[in-house]
Amino acid sequence: MVSPVMPSAGVLSPLGLEAVRLSPGFWGDRVALNREVIITHCQEWMERVGWIGNFRGVTPRRGREFSDSEIYKLLEAMAWSDHPALDELAATVARAQEEDGYLNTRWSGRRYTDFEWGHELYCYGHLIQAGVARLRAHGEDTLTEVVRRAADHVCARFMDTEETCGHPVVEAALVELYRVTGTERYLEMARRFVERRGRPALGEIQFHPAYFQDDLPVRRARVFRGHAVRALYLACGAVDVAVETGDTELLQAVRAQWERTVARRVHLTGGMGSHHSDEAFGEDFELPADRAYSETCAGIASIMLSHRLLLATGDARYADLAERTMYNVLATAVALDGRSFFYANPLQVRVPAEPCEGVNHGAEGGLRSPWFDVSCCPNNIARTLASLPAYLAAADGDALRIHHYTPGEIRHDGLALRIETDYPWSGTVTAHVVEGRAGRISLRVPPWAEGATLTYGGVAHPAEPGYATAEADWRPGDRIRLDLPVRPRWTFPDRRVDAVRGCAAVERGPLVYCAESAADEPPLARVTAEPLAPVERHVDGAVELDVPAALTPPEDDAWPYRSDPRATTGREIPLRLIPYHRWGNRGPVSMRVWLPLA
Amino acid sequence: MVSPVMPSAGVLSPLGLEAVRLSPGFWGDRVALNREVIITHCQEWMERVGWIGNFRGVTPRRGREFSDSEIYKLLEAMAWSDHPALDELAATVARAQEEDGYLNTRWSGRRYTDFEWGHELYCYGHLIQAGVARLRAHGEDTLTEVVRRAADHVCARFMDTEETCGHPVVEAALVELYRVTGTERYLEMARRFVERRGRPALGEIQFHPAYFQDDLPVRRARVFRGHAVRALYLACGAVDVAVETGDTELLQAVRAQWERTVARRVHLTGGMGSHHSDEAFGEDFELPADRAYSETCAGIASIMLSHRLLLATGDARYADLAERTMYNVLATAVALDGRSFFYANPLQVRVPAEPCEGVNHGAEGGLRSPWFDVSCCPNNIARTLASLPAYLAAADGDALRIHHYTPGEIRHDGLALRIETDYPWSGTVTAHVVEGRAGRISLRVPPWAEGATLTYGGVAHPAEPGYATAEADWRPGDRIRLDLPVRPRWTFPDRRVDAVRGCAAVERGPLVYCAESAADEPPLARVTAEPLAPVERHVDGAVELDVPAALTPPEDDAWPYRSDPRATTGREIPLRLIPYHRWGNRGPVSMRVWLPLA
Repeated sequence: MVSPVMPSAGVLSPLGLEAVRLSPGFWGDRVALNREVIITHCQEWMERVGWIGNFRGVTPRRGREFSDSEIYKLLEAMAWSDHPALDELAATVARAQEEDGYLNTRWSGRRYTDFEWGHELYCYGHLIQAGVARLRAHGEDTLTEVVRRAADHVCARFMDTEETCGHPVVEAALVELYRVTGTERYLEMARRFVERRGRPALGEIQFHPAYFQDDLPVRRARVFRGHAVRALYLACGAVDVAVETGDTELLQAVRAQWERTVARRVHLTGGMGSHHSDEAFGEDFELPADRAYSETCAGIASIMLSHRLLLATGDARYADLAERTMYNVLATAVALDGRSFFYANPLQVRVPAEPCEGVNHGAEGGLRSPWFDVSCCPNNIARTLASLPAYLAAADGDALRIHHYTPGEIRHDGLALRIETDYPWSGTVTAHVVEGRAGRISLRVPPWAEGATLTYGGVAHPAEPGYATAEADWRPGDRIRLDLPVRPRWTFPDRRVDAVRGCAAVERGPLVYCAESAADEPPLARVTAEPLAPVERHVDGAVELDVPAALTPPEDDAWPYRSDPRATTGREIPLRLIPYHRWGNRGPVSMRVWLPLA
Repeated sequence: MVSPVMPSAGVLSPLGLEAVRLSPGFWGDRVALNREVIITHCQEWMERVGWIGNFRGVTPRRGREFSDSEIYKLLEAMAWSDHPALDELAATVARAQEEDGYLNTRWSGRRYTDFEWGHELYCYGHLIQAGVARLRAHGEDTLTEVVRRAADHVCARFMDTEETCGHPVVEAALVELYRVTGTERYLEMARRFVERRGRPALGEIQFHPAYFQDDLPVRRARVFRGHAVRALYLACGAVDVAVETGDTELLQAVRAQWERTVARRVHLTGGMGSHHSDEAFGEDFELPADRAYSETCAGIASIMLSHRLLLATGDARYADLAERTMYNVLATAVALDGRSFFYANPLQVRVPAEPCEGVNHGAEGGLRSPWFDVSCCPNNIARTLASLPAYLAAADGDALRIHHYTPGEIRHDGLALRIETDYPWSGTVTAHVVEGRAGRISLRVPPWAEGATLTYGGVAHPAEPGYATAEADWRPGDRIRLDLPVRPRWTFPDRRVDAVRGCAAVERGPLVYCAESAADEPPLARVTAEPLAPVERHVDGAVELDVPAALTPPEDDAWPYRSDPRATTGREIPLRLIPYHRWGNRGPVSMRVWLPLA
C-alpha cells in the first residue's frame, strides 16, 4: 500500500494512493498543481541556490546546515508520484554517502559535533521518509539502498548512547522504515530517541530547553511547547512508537497534550506557533493575529499528527482539526499558480508587503515568495500534496470512512465510490457506488455542520457531528448524499485571547474568511464590522461574503493613548470577505481575519 | 561642565552634575543605589563571565562580539562618579590597544571584516563616550589617551571610505568628543557616518536593511524603524551633527520621525520596540502588551534622544516623553535592590516566570535577572543613572528650567534652589531659594496635569502644560510651589492598537500602573475591570490603587473560538494596582498593565 503512515495497530487502517484517486476539484487541482508545477519549481530553485550542488561536492558549500533535508523532502514528493527526475537526483545523493552510511554535506569530517543545531539526524529523518515513500510506491532502488545504509549507520552509532538531535523527525521516520521493512532495530532506535529526550539529552542554547522539547520527557509533558515544528514532529514519532509498542501511556500523553494545545494554543486557521523569535508556541492564549507565526511546516506537521491520532483512535476531532489546517494553512501557503509560498501565515497584515521575486531572507508573511533562505516550507508542501489522497479516507475493517471531501474515486475491499462535490463551496457531497458489496460507509460531519443530513436509500437521516454511517448491501448506481450546511457564521474568540479581544471572524464550512484591501484602501485599521448575516457572492468559482461594516474617521493624535475612548461610529461601507486561503494572490494588500466590532 | 551632552547651539544649555545634586528621593535613591550597588554588580559579573579577562588576553575569548562595549559603558558610569575602580579597569583596557589605536578583543587580526555584525565602531562609540565622561569629570588620563588614539584611528581609517557600522553609536560619541576637545575631524567623521548610512552602506543580512537603518538616508526617513536601539542611537548622532553643523533640515527630519514614532510606535510606558525576533519597532500601532520588547536600552536611548531634542528646541514634549520613559522603563528595569535587571519590559506577563539567579540566556521579561548573555542593559542603566542629574534641569540663558522633580539642589549662575518633593507620589514640588538673584525660573507642567498651579510671591497662577514660569528678584527664603494634580486616571488606547482593544490602563502622574498577581492567583486572564475612580492606598512609601473588578468564571472549552461571545460578568473582587516600575520585586507573578473592561 502506498501511504505515508501505515500503523500495525489502531482503530483505523489507512488507504493508500492507489485506493484514492482525485479528479478536478479543490484538492485534486492542488495535487495536480504539485505534480505539474511545484515539484519542478522546488528542484529548479534548489539547483539555483546550490543545495543540490552540495551533493556534487561543489565548493563552497551553499545553504544552511539543514539544507540536505530539503533535497530529501523533494525526493519524498517525487517518490509518491514516481516522478521521472527522481533517479538522477537520488544518484546525486548516493554519491555523497560515505562508506559507513554517513551522509551529510555540511558536517562530513566534523560528524556529530553539534547535536543542538547540527540537524544531522533531522536530515536522516527526511531521507528515511523519502526512502519509505520509494519502497512503498516503487520498491528497492538506489535511493532505498542509500536509506537503509543511512538508517543502519544511525542505529550503529546511536543505539547505545544518550544522544539525540536538536530537531526531531528521525523518530517517526524510523518507525515507518520499520513498518515497511520489518527490521525491528529501527523501531527500537526510534523508541530510544523518543525516550531519551528531556532527560535532558541536549546542551544549553540561547532558548529554553523547551525550544527543542528537552525540558521534559515526552510522556511527562502536558502541552506542546517550544519550536512548533519540532514539537509536532516529535509528537508524531511518539504516537508511532506508542502504537507499535502498545505503549498506551505514551499515546494517552500525546493525546492529552494535543487536547490542551488545541484548546489554548491554536489559531483559528488551525495554524500553530505564535513567536517569530524562536518559531515557537507561545503561552496559553498567546495567539496574536499580526505576529501569528503559524509556520506552514507546523501546519503540515499538525496534519501529520492529527492523521496518526485519527488512525490510532478513530476520533473525528483529529480529522476536524486536520481539515481546518488543510484548508486554512496548507491551501493558504501556496499561491494559486504554485510558484510562491508563505513561510509564516499571519492572520493580519497591516502594511502591504513589497513583492519578493527571489530568495526571501526572512519568513514574514506579507506576500508569498518563490524561495527562502530557510526553505523548508515549499518542499514540505510538495511532499504533503503528493501524498495527500492517502489522508482523505481510511478503513475500519471492511467498513469505509471518508474524512475529507473532494471529487475523486475511493476503493476499498471490493467497494468503489465516485465522490462528486463542490465542497467547500457547497456542502453537498454525493458518493456514487461504482462497485458494490454489503458494508458500512461513514462520512465525517464537522462540528459546525448543525442540521446535516445523510441521505441513502431515499431516506434522509439526521447526521450529528462525528461520523454519519450508512449501512447497506451497496449496488452500483446507489448513492449516498451528505448535506452539510455551509452557511457563513460569525466566530468569537475566548476572552483570554488578548490579541483579538473585541473582534469576530467569519467562517463558512471549513473555511476561515478575511478582509483583503489592495494598497490598504480602505484602510483596514479603520474598519469595524457588525456581526450580522453575511451575503454570499459567487466569484471565480469561490464564495465571497459581504458583511456590514463602517469606516471610522481618520485620527491623527500625537499620542495613541487618551483619557476617553473614541467613538467607533463611521460611515457605512461594503466589506468583502474572501476565503483566507486565497488572500495575497493579487499583489500587495493589507489583510485581517479578525474584524473589530463596532 | 560635567554633562553627557553639551551642544554648542540650541535653545537650552545643559546643567552639569556639579550643578544638580540629588538628596534622598525617587531619583536620588536610585543614583545612590547605582553608586553603591549597581556599578560594582556589573564589574563583578563582567569579571565572572570573562569579558574583562578578554582585555588581559585570557583565552579562549568569552562573550559576544560586542562585549568590549560593556566594559566601556561601565567605564563611563565610573567616570561620571569618579569611581575608585576606574583607573585599574582603564589600564586593563589600555594594554589591549594596538600601536595604531585599534582596540577590539574580538576582531584583532581580522579587523573590519564584518561591518554588518562586527560592532567594532559600535565598541569605539561606547569607548569614546567613556572618554568624554572622563575628560569632563576629571581630565586627561590613561583612559582619555586610549580614547583619543582610538578616535584618531577611526578617523584615519574611515574618513574617506563609504563604510559604516551595523550598530550606530559612534556618531553621537564622536560629536561629543569634538565638543570636549574642539578637534573638528571628529565632528566631520560623525557627519560622514550619519550621511553615508542608507545609501546603502552595508551588505545583506537576514533582516530587512531597515534593521540597521540602512534602507534610507537619515534625512529621508519618516519614522524610527528597525532595531530600536540602533534607530535611537543613530537619531541621537544625527541631532548632534545637525546641531553642530547648523543642519536644520536634518534636525527637522529627526523631529518629524520622533513625532510620527511617538504617535504610533510607543508603548504606554514610553518603551519602544515590539519585536523579539529583531528587537525592532513594529509597524504603526503594532504594540503588543505581552510581547512588548521595550528593551531597557531602547528606553535609555529614547531618553538620550529626547534630552538632545529638548536642548535643541526647548519643547516640553521631549521632556514629557523622557519623564514617562524614566519612570516606567528606566526605573522598572532595575530591581529595588539593584542586583537584577529587565532586558525586555513587557506590559503583560501571563505565566509567572522561573527565577534566574545566573546568566539569563534570553531577554524574556518575566522576572529580572542578575546578568544576560547579551548584557547591554545593566551597564547602560549604570552609566545613565550616573549621569542622570544632568538630565533634570537646563538653562535658557540666565533663566533656569526644571524638567524633572526629585529632591536635591540645583545651581545656575548665582541662583541656588533646594527642591523638596515627594513626587511622583504627591504632585507638590517646592523650590526653596537658597541663593538668589533676579531672573526667570520655569517648571515643566506635564500634559496630564490639568488644573496645575504655580504659586510664588504668595499668589497661585494657573499653570498650563508646557513650562510655567515664575519671574522675580529671588531672595533666600523665597519659595516657588508647583502643584500638579496626580489623581489616578483611566487611559484608553487608540483603536488601531489591536493588541489592547477593549482594555484600559490606569496612570497616576507620570506613573503607569499594573495588576500583579502572585502565582497568578487570582488569574489575571479572568479579571475584568470597570473604569471607575480608583481608591488610593499608601503602602511602603508608594501609592497603590484599588479598582473595581470582577473575576469571571473559569472556562474550559476544547476549542477557544465560539459561535457566541461569552458573557463577561463575574463576581466582584478587589483588584490592587501597583506602580509598573515596582512589579516583579516580590517573586514570580503574572502582570498586566492593560486591563480588559467588563
